[in-house]
Amino acid sequence: MNDTLLRALRRQPTDHTPVWLMRQAGRYLPEYNRTRARAGSFLDLCRNPGLATEVTLQPLARFPLDAAILFSDILTVPDAMGLGLYFVEGEGPRFERPLRDEWMIRDLSPPDPTVGLRYVLDAVAEIKRALAGEVPLIGFSGSPFTLASYMIEGGGSSDFRMLKTMLYSRPDLLHRILEVNAVAVTDYLNAQIEAGVQAVMVFDTWGGILTPPAYRTFSLAYLERVADGLLKHRDGESVPTIVFTKGGGQWLEAIAGAGYDAVGLDWTTDLAEARERVGQQVALQGNLDPMVLMADPDAIRRECRRVLESFGAHPGHVFNLGHGISQFTPPESVSVLVECVHATSRELRRTGAG
Amino acid sequence: MNDTLLRALRRQPTDHTPVWLMRQAGRYLPEYNRTRARAGSFLDLCRNPGLATEVTLQPLARFPLDAAILFSDILTVPDAMGLGLYFVEGEGPRFERPLRDEWMIRDLSPPDPTVGLRYVLDAVAEIKRALAGEVPLIGFSGSPFTLASYMIEGGGSSDFRMLKTMLYSRPDLLHRILEVNAVAVTDYLNAQIEAGVQAVMVFDTWGGILTPPAYRTFSLAYLERVADGLLKHRDGESVPTIVFTKGGGQWLEAIAGAGYDAVGLDWTTDLAEARERVGQQVALQGNLDPMVLMADPDAIRRECRRVLESFGAHPGHVFNLGHGISQFTPPESVSVLVECVHATSRELRRTGAG
Repeated sequence: MNDTLLRALRRQPTDHTPVWLMRQAGRYLPEYNRTRARAGSFLDLCRNPGLATEVTLQPLARFPLDAAILFSDILTVPDAMGLGLYFVEGEGPRFERPLRDEWMIRDLSPPDPTVGLRYVLDAVAEIKRALAGEVPLIGFSGSPFTLASYMIEGGGSSDFRMLKTMLYSRPDLLHRILEVNAVAVTDYLNAQIEAGVQAVMVFDTWGGILTPPAYRTFSLAYLERVADGLLKHRDGESVPTIVFTKGGGQWLEAIAGAGYDAVGLDWTTDLAEARERVGQQVALQGNLDPMVLMADPDAIRRECRRVLESFGAHPGHVFNLGHGISQFTPPESVSVLVECVHATSRELRRTGAG
Repeated sequence: MNDTLLRALRRQPTDHTPVWLMRQAGRYLPEYNRTRARAGSFLDLCRNPGLATEVTLQPLARFPLDAAILFSDILTVPDAMGLGLYFVEGEGPRFERPLRDEWMIRDLSPPDPTVGLRYVLDAVAEIKRALAGEVPLIGFSGSPFTLASYMIEGGGSSDFRMLKTMLYSRPDLLHRILEVNAVAVTDYLNAQIEAGVQAVMVFDTWGGILTPPAYRTFSLAYLERVADGLLKHRDGESVPTIVFTKGGGQWLEAIAGAGYDAVGLDWTTDLAEARERVGQQVALQGNLDPMVLMADPDAIRRECRRVLESFGAHPGHVFNLGHGISQFTPPESVSVLVECVHATSRELRRTGAG
């Protein structure tokens, strides 16, 4: 198996820098859009293990990526809690029953993933069979705080007004939601690990909207609980863990101490400075601006090299974007990028540069 | 005159921490909405010096704020360049003629503010007369980069795809726009200073979406040019300058060296750490999460005190929000906040705490 990703996450030497892309199975691929049209809706696609397997493998058929990531949505967990996830075309996720009343929060409980999220675990098993050990499969979940933000707002938000009103006025209620979410996320990721994923990533998409003390109290503390509760091994192999707080660059030292093997970074943080700040405590994942992929091949190669050189030729770097790939990305740009990461990182290791 | 704001911006001791709020004249005030309804549209309101004066003064009639800020829009400058600013209700600003062709960029030139932005200068003069020296008047402009982002995208954006495609593929074109904008912003702010504003602020709303090197090249370099070109005095009084890059907390040291007297911070940066990083080089302005104003009075006072204590009882703090006040803010929350900033900062100075 190509275990470059797992080795890099464990801060072991690799002959090239592994690369995968957040949302690598997605709308920028025409074959994805065809499968999705066959499935019906986005949620139908998530819930159909056969089709979820198909789209998970699509980017690997095109590009020599170093990992597969389970095709799913971060909001399947609150959906399994009974909040009623649905999607409005072009507007993102919504919940039919957001947490607006205190009794709903009191009644909340973590779902049994082997029941309410069976379809995800079935997809993991089917993807594992289909991958046949070619590259590792990454499982994932939203963070307790990020799930809570959607559960309270009922969808995306530009100001997180309802969430923050609760945070400042009724922190007890928010803590109650986060406690349930931390158990739910831990159980869900452990079920994915038992079903076969070889690494897990926690997406804290919205932690960066908080003040530093609120981030520690309402996001980081629950990320730590999840890390504490995760299965560390499966079949004698360690299962590396990644945490990514978008916009969390200022809090990198704290995040690096949360108990994960790797920390994802968006493109606003310089990787050289980040490495200096955390040393060898964790691997780092990132951090190309996804919009670089809109540019011409020369510009893509220039920015790819800049990211690789900023990290330097040390163990512990997983190349990725700093956010999910845009639906407007030309697939050829991804070819250029993946080829560049592999070739340039081999060259940097040879020359000892970076 | 209450010159507490000017003294704090100059890092001189003050008997309390001055406070004003970004977008303090705005939709959360019923009297603002009445004036706006009378004016017609938002732009009609900006273009009518009498009504702009009226709304500029409204928050001062309600709250003992330490400054007035000119009521206007950051996009009046590109509008004066001929891009055709308009507003779609509930969707924010748009340009009729965004910069989509190379010839449009080649043809771009800085407007003479005394002609195309006469209405703003007239408003400044009228507001100054109406204020009668009660508190200082702050003038402002968007930053060269932030103006460019709207000029290229044609409005707001979630991914800044057009802007970044140009940035990565045709940096020469983006530099051409930024050069024009830097001259335009400098001329515009100097015209405001000549018309009577006593401090100026440059809003770099979108600089935080860039990578560190792109921020330095495409935003900070042009902020420096503006700072270099600003009139430093008017009528023998220094005119303090403030720069605010939302999401720029990671680059604070660099921003503090750009030539401004004060740096604005959003709520994701801890003020105690910020002060340690920049020392007495600049004053700091900020940084309450605007959503705190949705909470109950006790929570508002708690967060107000936390912000004041994090800065400590040193000279050089201007209290503000970390972003514009939300239209959903109850006006009573602003009363609680302003009273708390004044009382608590006096108390901290007495006790030497913080």
